[in-house]
Amino acid sequence: MVDVFFIERDPYAPIRHVYPVSQVLYQGKSQFQEIMVLESPFFGKVLVLDGVAQCDERFEYIYHEFMAHVPLYAHPNPQDVLIIGGGDGGVLREVLKHPEVKRAVLVDIDKEVIEVSKRFFPTMSVAFQDPRVLVLNEDGYKYIQDCEKEFDVIIVDSTDPVGFAHVLTTEEFFRYVYNALKDDGIYVGQTESLHYHIEIVRRVQKSLHKVFPIVDMYTAVIPGYAGYWWTMSVGSKVHDPREPKRPVSVQAKLYSEDMHRYAFLPKSFYQKVLSGEYNP
Amino acid sequence: MVDVFFIERDPYAPIRHVYPVSQVLYQGKSQFQEIMVLESPFFGKVLVLDGVAQCDERFEYIYHEFMAHVPLYAHPNPQDVLIIGGGDGGVLREVLKHPEVKRAVLVDIDKEVIEVSKRFFPTMSVAFQDPRVLVLNEDGYKYIQDCEKEFDVIIVDSTDPVGFAHVLTTEEFFRYVYNALKDDGIYVGQTESLHYHIEIVRRVQKSLHKVFPIVDMYTAVIPGYAGYWWTMSVGSKVHDPREPKRPVSVQAKLYSEDMHRYAFLPKSFYQKVLSGEYNP
Repeated sequence: MVDVFFIERDPYAPIRHVYPVSQVLYQGKSQFQEIMVLESPFFGKVLVLDGVAQCDERFEYIYHEFMAHVPLYAHPNPQDVLIIGGGDGGVLREVLKHPEVKRAVLVDIDKEVIEVSKRFFPTMSVAFQDPRVLVLNEDGYKYIQDCEKEFDVIIVDSTDPVGFAHVLTTEEFFRYVYNALKDDGIYVGQTESLHYHIEIVRRVQKSLHKVFPIVDMYTAVIPGYAGYWWTMSVGSKVHDPREPKRPVSVQAKLYSEDMHRYAFLPKSFYQKVLSGEYNP
Repeated sequence: MVDVFFIERDPYAPIRHVYPVSQVLYQGKSQFQEIMVLESPFFGKVLVLDGVAQCDERFEYIYHEFMAHVPLYAHPNPQDVLIIGGGDGGVLREVLKHPEVKRAVLVDIDKEVIEVSKRFFPTMSVAFQDPRVLVLNEDGYKYIQDCEKEFDVIIVDSTDPVGFAHVLTTEEFFRYVYNALKDDGIYVGQTESLHYHIEIVRRVQKSLHKVFPIVDMYTAVIPGYAGYWWTMSVGSKVHDPREPKRPVSVQAKLYSEDMHRYAFLPKSFYQKVLSGEYNP
C-alpha cells in the first residue's frame, strides 16, 4: 500500500496535484532551486524543482516532442539549435533526432539539474553524450546577448515564469532572441496554460508580437502541468510554423505530420484568446 | 487564508486533485451516492459525487458545450433529444439553446442531484424550467429499453464507468441506444481520458463499433477531470459527426464551427488509439 504522498506547490495553479510516492530517490538544493526525484507507481520517476513537477518518465515525451519537433519541422534546414533551460535533456534528445542538426547548444543555469538527470533519468539525459552537443552552465539571458544570427531554432524550456525564469518571457529578451536567430530563424517557448494562466499567455504573445513578424501558438495536453492545455508560443522571421517544411520521418510517440498541424488552434479561436474575447 | 482542502478520491486517476475550499455548502447522501457542494476561491461552486468533482462553475461550460453542441450540430434537425444522467442540468441547458429541439427528456436515476443543482447551481439548472423538458427519475438503462426510433440525439452524461454507471458503456446498452435512435440518430457519451484511461476508451470504442456503422471520437481538455484530455465517443447511423450540418449560431464560450472540427482528432492518430499503436 502507498502511504506517502507528494503534494505539489505550484504557485501558479489554483489546485494541487498529489502523487502517491513509492520512494524519494533524491532531495537536494542547488544554488538556484530545490531538486527532488520521486518514484511514483504510475508515472515512474518524477523530477521536481522548487516543489513543482517538471517531468515524469511516463508522459515526458508529450512536452519534449512538441517543444522540439514543431519548430524543427517548421524550419527547412535546422542546423544550429539553441536550448535555454532544458537541463533534464528531454528536448535535447528530440532535437538530436533530426539529422540536419549539426550543433545543439544547451544553456542551463543550473548544472545540478543536468547531473541529477544523468543519474536518475537515463532515457532523457542520453543526448548529453552526443558529440554535436555543447552544454554551458550559464545564464541563458546573458548568453544570448552575445549571439548574432547564429541559430536556426531557439527553444526556451524554462521553469514557470516566476522567480529567475521570469525574464525569459519579456520583450527585451525576445529582442535578444530575434538577434540571435538567423534570417529565417524560429523561436519556441513554453508559455503556461489556457485554462489557468491565460493572462500570462496573452502577455507573452503581446511581447512576441512587438518583435517578430510571424507570431503563433500551439498546444499540447500535459498531464503533469496543472492547467493541462499547455501553450507553446512561436516567433518566426519567415516560415509559417503551422506547416512542416520537410517530410516528417522522426520516431515519436505522439508527434506526427498530422499532429503538427493539429497542435495549432483554429485561427478564429487563437484570435479570441489574443483579443481577450475568450476568457475561462 | 485558505486552510481547508478537498482531496479528491477518483478511483480511476493515478493522482489526486486538491482544491482549496472556502466553504462546504452541502453534504448529503442519496440512495445512490454521496453528494457534496463546495465553494472554491478559484473555481466557484464545485459539485462532488462520491468524492469525485463533477463540475465547477468556472469551467463547466467546456464539458457541457462539447457534449451537447457537437452531436446536435452533427444532426440536420435534432427535434427529440434524450439525456441519460446529466442531473446537474448543464448539458440540458446547452441542448435547449437549439431552437430545433422540441422535446428534451432527461433521465437521471438520482433526483437529489437535480434538487441540489437547482438549489446551488442556478446557472446550470436554469434549463429545468423550460416547457420542452421532461425529467424522469428512473434508471436510464431500463428506460431506454422501451424506446424505439424516438430520438434524434442521445447524450449519455454519466459518472465514471465504475459502479452503477458501468452498464452505460456496454455493447448491450449501445444496442438499446441504437434502437432508441431514429434512422439518422446520433449517440454521444463521455468515455474518460486518453492520458489515464486509454484501455477504457478502447473498450467503449470497440463496443460501439459492433453496433453503429459510423463510430468516432472527439476530445476536450477538462481541467476538473484528472486525465484532462477527455474523450467523447460517438455512434452515428448516417451522419458524419465531424461536419456541422447547420450554420453554427449558438451562443457558446468555447464551441464554434471551427472548434467543432478541431475537437476531432486527426484520423491517423485516432486509428493509432484504436489499434493500440498509441499508448501513453
